[in-house]
Amino acid sequence: MKQYVIGIDYGTLSARALLVNLADGSEAAESEFIYPHGVMTDADFNGRSLDVTDAFQHPQDYLDALRFTVGDLLSKAEVSSSEVAGIGIDFTASTILPVGDNKMPLCFDEAYRNEPQAYVKLWKHHSAQREADEINALAAERGESWLDIYGGKISSEWLFPKLIETLRKAPEVYHRADRFVEAVDWLTCLLTGEEVISACTAGYKGLWSKDAGYPSNEFWGAIDPRLEDVIGSKIRGEILPTGTRAGVLNEQGAALIGLEVGCAVAVPIIDAHAALPASGIVSDKKLMMIIGTSTCHIVMSRENHPVPGICGSVADGVIAGYTAYEAGQSCVGDSFDWYMKNCLPASYEEAAKAEGKSIFAYMDEKAAKSKVGESGILILDWWNGSRTPYVDAELTGTILGLTLKTTPEEIYRGMIESTAYGTKVIVDLFTEHGVEIDEIYAAGGISQKNQLLMQIYADVLGLPIKAVNCRQAGAKGSAVMAAAACGYFDSVEAAAERIADREGYVYVPDPANTKAYEKIYCQYRELAEYFAKKNDVMKKLK
Amino acid sequence: MKQYVIGIDYGTLSARALLVNLADGSEAAESEFIYPHGVMTDADFNGRSLDVTDAFQHPQDYLDALRFTVGDLLSKAEVSSSEVAGIGIDFTASTILPVGDNKMPLCFDEAYRNEPQAYVKLWKHHSAQREADEINALAAERGESWLDIYGGKISSEWLFPKLIETLRKAPEVYHRADRFVEAVDWLTCLLTGEEVISACTAGYKGLWSKDAGYPSNEFWGAIDPRLEDVIGSKIRGEILPTGTRAGVLNEQGAALIGLEVGCAVAVPIIDAHAALPASGIVSDKKLMMIIGTSTCHIVMSRENHPVPGICGSVADGVIAGYTAYEAGQSCVGDSFDWYMKNCLPASYEEAAKAEGKSIFAYMDEKAAKSKVGESGILILDWWNGSRTPYVDAELTGTILGLTLKTTPEEIYRGMIESTAYGTKVIVDLFTEHGVEIDEIYAAGGISQKNQLLMQIYADVLGLPIKAVNCRQAGAKGSAVMAAAACGYFDSVEAAAERIADREGYVYVPDPANTKAYEKIYCQYRELAEYFAKKNDVMKKLK
Repeated sequence: MKQYVIGIDYGTLSARALLVNLADGSEAAESEFIYPHGVMTDADFNGRSLDVTDAFQHPQDYLDALRFTVGDLLSKAEVSSSEVAGIGIDFTASTILPVGDNKMPLCFDEAYRNEPQAYVKLWKHHSAQREADEINALAAERGESWLDIYGGKISSEWLFPKLIETLRKAPEVYHRADRFVEAVDWLTCLLTGEEVISACTAGYKGLWSKDAGYPSNEFWGAIDPRLEDVIGSKIRGEILPTGTRAGVLNEQGAALIGLEVGCAVAVPIIDAHAALPASGIVSDKKLMMIIGTSTCHIVMSRENHPVPGICGSVADGVIAGYTAYEAGQSCVGDSFDWYMKNCLPASYEEAAKAEGKSIFAYMDEKAAKSKVGESGILILDWWNGSRTPYVDAELTGTILGLTLKTTPEEIYRGMIESTAYGTKVIVDLFTEHGVEIDEIYAAGGISQKNQLLMQIYADVLGLPIKAVNCRQAGAKGSAVMAAAACGYFDSVEAAAERIADREGYVYVPDPANTKAYEKIYCQYRELAEYFAKKNDVMKKLK
Repeated sequence: MKQYVIGIDYGTLSARALLVNLADGSEAAESEFIYPHGVMTDADFNGRSLDVTDAFQHPQDYLDALRFTVGDLLSKAEVSSSEVAGIGIDFTASTILPVGDNKMPLCFDEAYRNEPQAYVKLWKHHSAQREADEINALAAERGESWLDIYGGKISSEWLFPKLIETLRKAPEVYHRADRFVEAVDWLTCLLTGEEVISACTAGYKGLWSKDAGYPSNEFWGAIDPRLEDVIGSKIRGEILPTGTRAGVLNEQGAALIGLEVGCAVAVPIIDAHAALPASGIVSDKKLMMIIGTSTCHIVMSRENHPVPGICGSVADGVIAGYTAYEAGQSCVGDSFDWYMKNCLPASYEEAAKAEGKSIFAYMDEKAAKSKVGESGILILDWWNGSRTPYVDAELTGTILGLTLKTTPEEIYRGMIESTAYGTKVIVDLFTEHGVEIDEIYAAGGISQKNQLLMQIYADVLGLPIKAVNCRQAGAKGSAVMAAAACGYFDSVEAAAERIADREGYVYVPDPANTKAYEKIYCQYRELAEYFAKKNDVMKKLK
């Protein structure tokens, strides 16, 4: 009896997988695979030097993750491959790569081994800002209607800027490529043999919409004559709605993954979006924040509203009948990690060790002791640029209010607070443009690990936050999609009802803190507007 | 034959002393005494909690320093106390204390032992900003002519704001005090029995001028009725020009210091100003920067020019016949120390240890490797407020341009560069207001220890900087003053000619770096003007 599905969640540094029993919704086993290459550096390319904004990955890591986690799940749960009815995958996006006509990554070819442009460009690869600027300028000039869907500005993180960067920096890679695809669509193709593209990736990261398709080849040709046939050649594939079936494992796919031919493969989904079905969010007015290295905010509405500065809105992008709006903060956990690695004094590291605590636990405890506004510190959370609302990768992190008495825990708390202010900017932006928000949910590693951060977010937002009690929102959401795709359930809704996680702890705002934060938030907004719109010093310095 | 003099320099954390042979100008011995109490914290006052802006010291440390260093010098050089012709002292300023009618500090009285206001307020005690604001507002409203001398605004670091703070926070200390004096004038009084006040401390920090004296009691009474007789009661003493004799050791003074009755005691001088005679600077157009925990800039001119935002200008304040202008940066070495203590990761500390280098040497080496403008970092050097040009203790340090790839050495280099920009603001301010500058000299600990900083300053200023080769500019300058006061020489000029140090290494600017820095400097000025004048976010946060 086929009553298991597998969900695999490809994150920035590792892939995590779940085996779910459809009969009762329970988790039968879990597995994780850390990418051996991580985010690649100069050393991985034989010393070929990378730009400060580059972020490449090695696609072999993704294949190894697939093979390892599936085998590991079955062995841990003592489940046979014949019992698996379906598989679902989610991935960071836009994480793209060029593939050859053999459907394999161009970087596997000996000729391109030392050419970074032949590798995967991770979502946080920010070297295509010039290309994004060009697309934005031309689209605005021509009044391209698709531009409004993305808040009037597209990000350098997305598919087309990254593709054009490759055309310009390594034209031979561009010409040699058979297709440019999201990593998750490439894996789906390897498993099923079908050139299908997820409506979720295409809609949020590929400028595609159900009504109008991709921007025209005529538009791309005006950007660069070599792009005049890009749609239909380098960019092609059948676009399918999420929650449906992409195909079934063919022989090559079954061999690769160690499951049986015929096993259903769901249309893949972006990692952040998988968190909604994973958390049982299948209707409007519920904002889900997935808080990790970066934060993604998704909320659904029955109506279409243009919202400036968001990452996109896609009809039927997550649940049929709703438009799903996505906004984002480019740098949350990443900036805390940067801080701990680059700014934490030895004495603190030693004290944490002496008390037998992780450095984060130690710092959270110290930072929790100070009162709101006491430190005089105000930070702009732009270590990796600003996604929403400014869609500008060239903005930079700023720490204001330093004195000779400023302590490390004050700076750390200021960094957490700054990401909370960045979140409030997004909530305000949605509601000011007609996308209603009644409830706030949080998922992602940090939402479970960092209670201080969660309480500060609730205080700054002035709303309760429901922390969804799943350690693996992505993998769980992918399992829901697999459950729907394999036919065990009628619908994504029914699958979510059985499998989804429910909220655990609810963080309730402290009214006094909320009031105090309101004032500081006004200062944050004024400062952010100044550096984003009135003084381009950050760009001049970069 | 009396042919030795002693110069003692009271710094922020220690006192350093020199024994100089007048026959050949050689240094016969040196000594240092580190203040046991340092800068006092909550713990020193039985847990009585201090403000973040407070900085107190214990006057017993100064007495211990006097006794220890003089004895140490004589013993090291095998010189007898009968051979010492004179002694000169310089001190940080405005570093003030209330003394009782027994001429001893009020804090020595058991009743005031736990009362911080009865102790010494160190120059960097910044808790009297409200009082400085009041004085500035009333003086501006009444059109007090003395306000122009100090660039239109006085600092919270000076004598009167600190005195009024005491009146308000601890009225019983104010009423019980016989006088409020600079620490250096108090020591002079203990040694000679004479209530003399240095024209240098009175002119730069006490709002006194040779022509007009102190602001009127009528003015002070308008600030607070309890001050209507402050001049002549709490503030009194004979004001004498620097380079002359304050008196001679009386029996009590001789016993205290271990020298003979009758030994000449020079009129004391502010530490920064001592650096000019110490370096042989006895004419106009030569800017001396004394770079230490903070930086003081002094230049002389034959003419009187009002310059906004400087710390003051005093006729005959250093050398007769010249007006000496003083400007300042409140925080230079202090901010580097703060950085090393609060932001340096353990891995760097370990690497420095492994390479057998001091942490500063290790960081200088790493920071020297990056090219001008490469990091994208821009810093406002206001960890301790801005003295010149904004005279505002509530401005705070700001780091802009942070990304996930920002390294500790880039931040450290940015901090050095920001203090260089702050210096250029001062040089530009002087020249724009008619005070000519042809040559730049540097003294102070950092000018000798940090070659990277000195080269960056030369590059940013676009002028050669002559590093004066004396490790103890203050003590040497005080020795020059003592040599003049004891009658061995005719004049300060003649004493300086024999004893003064000469410049050593000259840092020559690299024209390419100067050009690159010009652009970043424009950004620095724009940002500084914004936060000092257009957006008061720093004050609101404080």
